[in-house]
Amino acid sequence: MQKTNLLRDRDGWETIASETHFQSPHLSVATDEVRTPSQSQARKWSIVHRKPAVVIAPLTREGKFVLIREERIPIRAAIWSFPAGQIDETLEPDEAAVQEVARRELREETGYELAAGAELVSLGYFFTSPGFTDELCHFFLARPVQESAGGAAHDETEAILDCREFSADVLRAMITEGEIRDSNTLGIWARMVACGEIFP
Amino acid sequence: MQKTNLLRDRDGWETIASETHFQSPHLSVATDEVRTPSQSQARKWSIVHRKPAVVIAPLTREGKFVLIREERIPIRAAIWSFPAGQIDETLEPDEAAVQEVARRELREETGYELAAGAELVSLGYFFTSPGFTDELCHFFLARPVQESAGGAAHDETEAILDCREFSADVLRAMITEGEIRDSNTLGIWARMVACGEIFP
Repeated sequence: MQKTNLLRDRDGWETIASETHFQSPHLSVATDEVRTPSQSQARKWSIVHRKPAVVIAPLTREGKFVLIREERIPIRAAIWSFPAGQIDETLEPDEAAVQEVARRELREETGYELAAGAELVSLGYFFTSPGFTDELCHFFLARPVQESAGGAAHDETEAILDCREFSADVLRAMITEGEIRDSNTLGIWARMVACGEIFP
Repeated sequence: MQKTNLLRDRDGWETIASETHFQSPHLSVATDEVRTPSQSQARKWSIVHRKPAVVIAPLTREGKFVLIREERIPIRAAIWSFPAGQIDETLEPDEAAVQEVARRELREETGYELAAGAELVSLGYFFTSPGFTDELCHFFLARPVQESAGGAAHDETEAILDCREFSADVLRAMITEGEIRDSNTLGIWARMVACGEIFP
Protein backbone atom coordinates (compact mmCIF):
# COMPACT_ATOMS: atom_id res chain seq x y z
CA MET A 1 0.00 0.00 0.00
CA GLN A 2 1.60 3.26 -1.07
CA LYS A 3 1.34 6.55 0.72
CA THR A 4 -0.97 9.39 -0.23
CA ASN A 5 0.44 12.88 -0.75
CA LEU A 6 -0.59 13.79 2.79
CA LEU A 7 1.92 11.28 4.14
CA ARG A 8 5.02 11.65 1.97
CA ASP A 9 8.50 12.38 3.36
CA ARG A 10 9.21 16.13 3.38
CA ASP A 11 10.54 18.87 5.66
CA GLY A 12 13.37 16.82 7.10
CA TRP A 13 11.68 13.41 7.18
CA GLU A 14 13.57 10.63 5.42
CA THR A 15 12.69 6.97 5.04
CA ILE A 16 15.95 5.00 4.99
CA ALA A 17 14.54 1.48 4.79
CA SER A 18 11.20 -0.32 4.90
CA GLU A 19 10.59 -4.02 5.41
CA THR A 20 7.08 -5.37 4.74
CA HIS A 21 6.01 -8.21 7.06
CA PHE A 22 2.42 -8.82 5.98
CA GLN A 23 0.13 -7.65 3.22
CA SER A 24 -3.58 -8.17 2.57
CA PRO A 25 -6.25 -6.24 0.64
CA HIS A 26 -7.17 -4.53 3.93
CA LEU A 27 -3.85 -3.58 5.50
CA SER A 28 -0.11 -4.03 5.35
CA VAL A 29 2.45 -4.09 8.15
CA ALA A 30 6.00 -2.81 7.79
CA THR A 31 8.96 -1.80 9.91
CA ASP A 32 10.27 1.53 8.64
CA GLU A 33 13.65 3.00 9.48
CA VAL A 34 13.11 6.73 9.52
CA ARG A 35 15.18 9.84 10.15
CA THR A 36 13.04 12.57 11.68
CA PRO A 37 13.62 16.34 11.75
CA SER A 38 14.50 16.38 15.46
CA GLN A 39 16.98 13.53 15.77
CA SER A 40 20.17 12.62 13.94
CA GLN A 41 19.80 8.93 14.83
CA ALA A 42 17.29 7.06 12.63
CA ARG A 43 14.55 5.11 14.42
CA LYS A 44 12.74 1.87 13.54
CA TRP A 45 8.97 1.81 13.90
CA SER A 46 6.20 -0.75 13.21
CA ILE A 47 3.55 0.78 10.97
CA VAL A 48 0.19 -0.52 9.76
CA HIS A 49 -0.69 1.00 6.39
CA ARG A 50 -4.37 1.53 5.63
CA LYS A 51 -6.30 3.16 2.80
CA PRO A 52 -7.69 6.63 3.55
CA ALA A 53 -11.38 6.79 4.42
CA VAL A 54 -14.36 9.12 4.70
CA VAL A 55 -16.77 9.71 7.58
CA ILE A 56 -20.10 11.39 6.92
CA ALA A 57 -22.38 13.17 9.43
CA PRO A 58 -25.75 13.14 7.61
CA LEU A 59 -28.18 15.80 8.87
CA THR A 60 -31.85 15.89 7.84
CA ARG A 61 -33.88 19.04 7.11
CA GLU A 62 -35.52 18.49 10.52
CA GLY A 63 -32.14 18.65 12.29
CA LYS A 64 -31.75 14.90 12.95
CA PHE A 65 -28.46 13.00 12.51
CA VAL A 66 -28.55 9.63 10.71
CA LEU A 67 -26.50 6.87 12.36
CA ILE A 68 -26.07 3.17 11.67
CA ARG A 69 -25.64 0.28 14.08
CA GLU A 70 -23.02 -2.10 12.76
CA GLU A 71 -21.31 -5.25 13.96
CA ARG A 72 -17.57 -4.56 14.22
CA ILE A 73 -15.69 -7.85 14.33
CA PRO A 74 -12.37 -6.55 15.81
CA ILE A 75 -14.17 -5.39 18.98
CA ARG A 76 -16.81 -8.17 19.09
CA ALA A 77 -19.66 -5.69 19.42
CA ALA A 78 -22.33 -3.82 17.46
CA ILE A 79 -22.07 -0.04 17.92
CA TRP A 80 -23.84 3.10 16.71
CA SER A 81 -21.69 5.32 14.49
CA PHE A 82 -21.81 7.68 11.55
CA PRO A 83 -21.52 5.99 8.12
CA ALA A 84 -17.95 5.64 6.83
CA GLY A 85 -15.96 3.82 4.20
CA GLN A 86 -12.58 3.43 2.60
CA ILE A 87 -11.38 5.15 -0.55
CA ASP A 88 -10.58 2.23 -2.83
CA GLU A 89 -10.49 4.06 -6.11
CA THR A 90 -7.11 5.71 -6.27
CA LEU A 91 -4.07 6.59 -4.22
CA GLU A 92 -4.27 10.27 -5.03
CA PRO A 93 -7.95 11.15 -4.92
CA ASP A 94 -8.82 14.76 -5.68
CA GLU A 95 -11.53 16.53 -3.69
CA ALA A 96 -14.24 15.50 -6.17
CA ALA A 97 -13.28 11.82 -5.93
CA VAL A 98 -13.29 11.92 -2.11
CA GLN A 99 -16.71 13.60 -2.14
CA GLU A 100 -18.01 10.93 -4.53
CA VAL A 101 -16.93 8.21 -2.05
CA ALA A 102 -18.73 10.12 0.72
CA ARG A 103 -21.95 10.23 -1.35
CA ARG A 104 -21.66 6.53 -2.17
CA GLU A 105 -21.04 5.43 1.43
CA LEU A 106 -23.92 7.61 2.63
CA ARG A 107 -26.28 5.98 0.12
CA GLU A 108 -25.06 2.40 0.59
CA GLU A 109 -24.86 2.39 4.38
CA THR A 110 -27.90 4.49 5.31
CA GLY A 111 -30.18 4.59 2.26
CA TYR A 112 -30.13 8.39 2.51
CA GLU A 113 -28.82 10.80 -0.11
CA LEU A 114 -28.15 14.51 -0.47
CA ALA A 115 -31.42 16.42 -1.02
CA ALA A 116 -31.78 18.90 -3.86
CA GLY A 117 -29.54 21.92 -3.21
CA ALA A 118 -27.73 20.11 -0.36
CA GLU A 119 -24.09 20.71 0.49
CA LEU A 120 -21.29 18.37 1.45
CA VAL A 121 -19.30 20.47 3.93
CA SER A 122 -15.64 19.44 4.26
CA LEU A 123 -14.49 19.47 7.89
CA GLY A 124 -10.90 18.42 7.28
CA TYR A 125 -9.46 15.06 8.26
CA PHE A 126 -7.96 13.20 11.22
CA PHE A 127 -5.66 10.30 12.04
CA THR A 128 -7.27 7.35 13.82
CA SER A 129 -4.15 6.25 15.75
CA PRO A 130 -0.97 7.99 14.56
CA GLY A 131 1.25 6.06 16.98
CA PHE A 132 0.99 2.95 14.84
CA THR A 133 -1.04 3.54 11.64
CA ASP A 134 -1.16 6.05 8.78
CA GLU A 135 -4.95 5.63 8.49
CA LEU A 136 -6.67 8.98 7.97
CA CYS A 137 -10.33 9.83 7.51
CA HIS A 138 -11.86 12.82 5.77
CA PHE A 139 -14.82 14.44 7.56
CA PHE A 140 -17.97 15.55 5.72
CA LEU A 141 -21.17 17.09 7.02
CA ALA A 142 -23.96 16.18 4.53
CA ARG A 143 -26.80 18.70 4.86
CA PRO A 144 -29.67 18.17 4.27
CA VAL A 145 -30.12 14.49 3.50
CA GLN A 146 -33.32 12.61 2.68
CA GLU A 147 -34.28 8.95 2.33
CA SER A 148 -33.58 7.76 -1.21
CA ALA A 149 -36.05 5.78 -3.28
CA GLY A 150 -33.60 2.88 -3.63
CA GLY A 151 -32.94 2.40 0.09
CA ALA A 152 -29.66 1.10 1.49
CA ALA A 153 -27.40 -1.29 -0.45
CA HIS A 154 -25.12 -2.89 2.10
CA ASP A 155 -21.84 -4.40 1.08
CA GLU A 156 -21.98 -8.17 1.65
CA THR A 157 -19.01 -8.00 4.05
CA GLU A 158 -20.83 -5.52 6.28
CA ALA A 159 -23.40 -6.28 8.95
CA ILE A 160 -25.46 -3.14 9.40
CA LEU A 161 -28.26 -3.99 11.80
CA ASP A 162 -30.13 -0.71 12.05
CA CYS A 163 -30.26 2.87 10.78
CA ARG A 164 -32.06 5.65 12.67
CA GLU A 165 -32.35 9.41 13.09
CA PHE A 166 -31.22 11.04 16.35
CA SER A 167 -31.60 14.64 17.50
CA ALA A 168 -28.41 16.57 18.34
CA ASP A 169 -29.39 16.38 22.03
CA VAL A 170 -29.84 12.60 21.97
CA LEU A 171 -26.55 12.17 20.11
CA ARG A 172 -24.84 14.29 22.76
CA ALA A 173 -26.36 12.11 25.51
CA MET A 174 -25.12 8.97 23.71
CA ILE A 175 -21.61 10.46 23.75
CA THR A 176 -21.89 11.33 27.45
CA GLU A 177 -23.04 7.81 28.30
CA GLY A 178 -20.31 6.10 26.28
CA GLU A 179 -22.75 4.55 23.82
CA ILE A 180 -20.90 6.45 21.07
CA ARG A 181 -17.37 5.10 21.42
CA ASP A 182 -15.69 5.06 18.01
CA SER A 183 -13.13 7.65 16.90
CA ASN A 184 -14.95 8.52 13.65
CA THR A 185 -18.14 9.64 15.35
CA LEU A 186 -16.43 11.33 18.31
CA GLY A 187 -13.95 13.00 15.96
CA ILE A 188 -16.40 14.52 13.50
CA TRP A 189 -18.70 15.52 16.37
CA ALA A 190 -15.76 17.39 17.99
CA ARG A 191 -14.97 19.13 14.70
CA MET A 192 -18.65 20.06 14.15
CA VAL A 193 -18.99 21.49 17.67
CA ALA A 194 -15.65 23.36 17.48
CA CYS A 195 -16.68 24.87 14.13
CA GLY A 196 -20.08 25.93 15.53
CA GLU A 197 -22.00 23.68 13.12
CA ILE A 198 -23.91 22.25 16.11
CA PHE A 199 -24.53 23.82 19.55
CA PRO A 200 -23.27 27.21 18.23
CA MET B 1 -1.53 -10.42 22.44
CA GLN B 2 -4.56 -11.62 24.34
CA LYS B 3 -7.84 -9.79 24.66
CA THR B 4 -8.95 -7.76 27.65
CA ASN B 5 -12.27 -8.50 29.31
CA LEU B 6 -13.86 -5.68 27.32
CA LEU B 7 -13.26 -7.63 24.11
CA ARG B 8 -14.09 -11.24 24.95
CA ASP B 9 -16.62 -13.32 23.00
CA ARG B 10 -20.09 -13.16 24.62
CA ASP B 11 -23.73 -12.54 23.73
CA GLY B 12 -23.69 -14.62 20.57
CA TRP B 13 -20.14 -13.83 19.37
CA GLU B 14 -17.98 -16.89 18.72
CA THR B 15 -14.40 -17.09 17.48
CA ILE B 16 -14.09 -20.26 15.40
CA ALA B 17 -10.47 -19.89 14.27
CA SER B 18 -7.63 -17.41 14.46
CA GLU B 19 -4.44 -17.38 12.41
CA THR B 20 -1.62 -15.06 13.47
CA HIS B 21 0.40 -13.59 10.59
CA PHE B 22 2.77 -11.24 12.39
CA GLN B 23 3.72 -10.47 15.96
CA SER B 24 5.93 -7.80 17.52
CA PRO B 25 6.10 -6.13 20.94
CA HIS B 26 3.88 -3.34 19.53
CA LEU B 27 1.16 -5.15 17.59
CA SER B 28 0.04 -8.46 16.18
CA VAL B 29 -1.95 -9.22 13.04
CA ALA B 30 -4.38 -12.10 12.73
CA THR B 31 -7.20 -13.33 10.52
CA ASP B 32 -10.09 -14.37 12.74
CA GLU B 33 -13.02 -16.48 11.64
CA VAL B 34 -15.96 -15.24 13.66
CA ARG B 35 -19.65 -16.03 14.01
CA THR B 36 -21.58 -12.89 14.92
CA PRO B 37 -25.01 -12.58 16.54
CA SER B 38 -26.71 -11.44 13.33
CA GLN B 39 -25.44 -13.95 10.77
CA SER B 40 -25.36 -17.74 10.67
CA GLN B 41 -22.43 -17.75 8.24
CA ALA B 42 -19.06 -17.12 9.91
CA ARG B 43 -16.91 -14.33 8.48
CA LYS B 44 -13.13 -13.91 8.18
CA TRP B 45 -11.63 -10.58 9.18
CA SER B 46 -8.09 -9.12 9.41
CA ILE B 47 -7.49 -7.70 12.88
CA VAL B 48 -4.59 -5.76 14.36
CA HIS B 49 -4.32 -6.41 18.10
CA ARG B 50 -2.97 -3.59 20.26
CA LYS B 51 -2.55 -3.04 23.99
CA PRO B 52 -5.15 -0.80 25.62
CA ALA B 53 -4.06 2.77 26.29
CA VAL B 54 -4.87 5.89 28.30
CA VAL B 55 -5.37 9.49 27.15
CA ILE B 56 -5.17 12.30 29.69
CA ALA B 57 -6.58 15.83 29.40
CA PRO B 58 -4.52 17.76 32.00
CA LEU B 59 -6.19 20.98 33.18
CA THR B 60 -4.37 23.56 35.32
CA ARG B 61 -5.93 25.54 38.17
CA GLU B 62 -5.99 28.52 35.78
CA GLY B 63 -8.12 26.59 33.29
CA LYS B 64 -5.38 25.84 30.75
CA PHE B 65 -4.99 22.46 29.00
CA VAL B 66 -1.50 20.94 28.75
CA LEU B 67 -0.62 19.48 25.35
CA ILE B 68 2.56 18.00 23.88
CA ARG B 69 3.97 18.27 20.38
CA GLU B 70 5.32 14.91 19.31
CA GLU B 71 6.85 13.43 16.19
CA ARG B 72 4.63 10.56 15.02
CA ILE B 73 6.57 8.36 12.61
CA PRO B 74 3.58 6.60 10.94
CA ILE B 75 2.25 9.93 9.65
CA ARG B 76 5.63 11.63 9.11
CA ALA B 77 4.61 14.70 11.08
CA ALA B 78 4.84 16.34 14.50
CA ILE B 79 1.40 17.13 15.93
CA TRP B 80 -0.08 18.64 19.08
CA SER B 81 -2.06 16.19 21.21
CA PHE B 82 -2.96 15.29 24.76
CA PRO B 83 -0.47 12.97 26.52
CA ALA B 84 -1.21 9.26 26.12
CA GLY B 85 0.40 5.89 26.57
CA GLN B 86 -0.10 2.16 26.46
CA ILE B 87 -0.94 -0.06 29.41
CA ASP B 88 1.98 -2.48 29.48
CA GLU B 89 1.55 -3.83 32.97
CA THR B 90 -1.19 -6.40 32.70
CA LEU B 91 -3.92 -7.74 30.48
CA GLU B 92 -6.63 -7.22 33.05
CA PRO B 93 -5.89 -3.89 34.68
CA ASP B 94 -8.30 -2.79 37.39
CA GLU B 95 -9.35 0.84 37.65
CA ALA B 96 -6.50 1.65 40.06
CA ALA B 97 -3.89 0.20 37.67
CA VAL B 98 -5.29 2.14 34.71
CA GLN B 99 -5.25 5.35 36.77
CA GLU B 100 -1.65 4.70 37.77
CA VAL B 101 -0.68 4.47 34.08
CA ALA B 102 -2.49 7.76 33.48
CA ARG B 103 -0.53 9.45 36.29
CA ARG B 104 2.74 8.03 34.98
CA GLU B 105 2.16 9.10 31.36
CA LEU B 106 1.10 12.57 32.51
CA ARG B 107 4.32 12.94 34.49
CA GLU B 108 6.65 11.41 31.91
CA GLU B 109 5.27 13.15 28.83
CA THR B 110 4.45 16.61 30.22
CA GLY B 111 6.36 17.02 33.48
CA TYR B 112 3.06 17.88 35.18
CA GLU B 113 1.41 15.97 38.01
CA LEU B 114 -1.85 16.00 39.91
CA ALA B 115 -1.91 18.85 42.45
CA ALA B 116 -2.85 18.25 46.08
CA GLY B 117 -6.53 17.31 46.28
CA ALA B 118 -6.78 16.86 42.50
CA GLU B 119 -9.09 14.34 40.85
CA LEU B 120 -8.61 11.99 37.92
CA VAL B 121 -12.08 11.99 36.32
CA SER B 122 -12.84 8.87 34.27
CA LEU B 123 -14.62 9.75 31.03
CA GLY B 124 -15.03 6.20 29.72
CA TYR B 125 -13.14 4.79 26.73
CA PHE B 126 -13.24 4.65 22.94
CA PHE B 127 -12.03 2.52 20.04
CA THR B 128 -9.52 4.17 17.71
CA SER B 129 -10.57 2.28 14.55
CA PRO B 130 -12.93 -0.63 15.25
CA GLY B 131 -13.09 -1.68 11.60
CA PHE B 132 -9.60 -3.17 11.80
CA THR B 133 -8.15 -2.96 15.33
CA ASP B 134 -9.20 -3.76 18.90
CA GLU B 135 -7.17 -0.82 20.25
CA LEU B 136 -9.09 1.03 22.94
CA CYS B 137 -8.14 4.06 25.02
CA HIS B 138 -9.39 5.10 28.44
CA PHE B 139 -10.14 8.82 28.86
CA PHE B 140 -9.13 10.76 31.97
CA LEU B 141 -9.54 14.42 32.85
CA ALA B 142 -6.75 15.32 35.32
CA ARG B 143 -7.80 18.39 37.32
CA PRO B 144 -5.97 20.39 38.53
CA VAL B 145 -2.40 19.62 37.45
CA GLN B 146 0.79 21.52 38.27
CA GLU B 147 4.38 21.40 37.06
CA SER B 148 6.33 18.80 39.00
CA ALA B 149 9.74 19.41 40.49
CA GLY B 150 11.28 16.59 38.48
CA GLY B 151 10.12 17.79 35.05
CA ALA B 152 9.34 15.48 32.15
CA ALA B 153 11.10 12.12 31.70
CA HIS B 154 10.59 11.16 28.08
CA ASP B 155 10.83 7.57 26.98
CA GLU B 156 13.85 7.22 24.68
CA THR B 157 11.66 5.95 21.82
CA GLU B 158 9.53 9.10 21.93
CA ALA B 159 10.33 12.46 20.35
CA ILE B 160 8.38 15.05 22.30
CA LEU B 161 9.43 18.45 20.96
CA ASP B 162 7.36 20.81 23.06
CA CYS B 163 4.85 21.02 25.91
CA ARG B 164 2.60 24.05 26.43
CA GLU B 165 -0.57 25.26 28.10
CA PHE B 166 -3.54 26.29 25.94
CA SER B 167 -6.81 27.93 26.98
CA ALA B 168 -10.04 26.08 26.16
CA ASP B 169 -10.77 28.72 23.49
CA VAL B 170 -7.40 28.29 21.80
CA LEU B 171 -7.75 24.50 21.90
CA ARG B 172 -11.16 24.83 20.28
CA ALA B 173 -9.66 27.04 17.54
CA MET B 174 -6.91 24.45 16.95
CA ILE B 175 -9.64 21.81 16.44
CA THR B 176 -11.56 24.10 14.06
CA GLU B 177 -8.42 24.79 12.02
CA GLY B 178 -7.43 21.12 11.81
CA GLU B 179 -4.24 21.61 13.83
CA ILE B 180 -5.63 19.07 16.30
CA ARG B 181 -6.09 16.00 14.12
CA ASP B 182 -5.58 12.85 16.19
CA SER B 183 -8.42 10.68 17.47
CA ASN B 184 -7.26 10.75 21.12
CA THR B 185 -7.47 14.52 21.46
CA LEU B 186 -10.63 14.92 19.37
CA GLY B 187 -12.25 12.00 21.18
CA ILE B 188 -11.64 13.14 24.76
CA TRP B 189 -12.54 16.73 23.79
CA ALA B 190 -15.88 15.45 22.43
CA ARG B 191 -16.52 13.49 25.63
CA MET B 192 -15.59 16.51 27.83
CA VAL B 193 -17.86 18.84 25.88
CA ALA B 194 -20.76 16.34 25.81
CA CYS B 195 -20.43 15.84 29.58
CA GLY B 196 -20.41 19.60 30.19
CA GLU B 197 -16.86 19.55 31.62
CA ILE B 198 -15.91 22.36 29.22
CA PHE B 199 -18.19 24.93 27.52
CA PRO B 200 -21.09 23.89 29.82
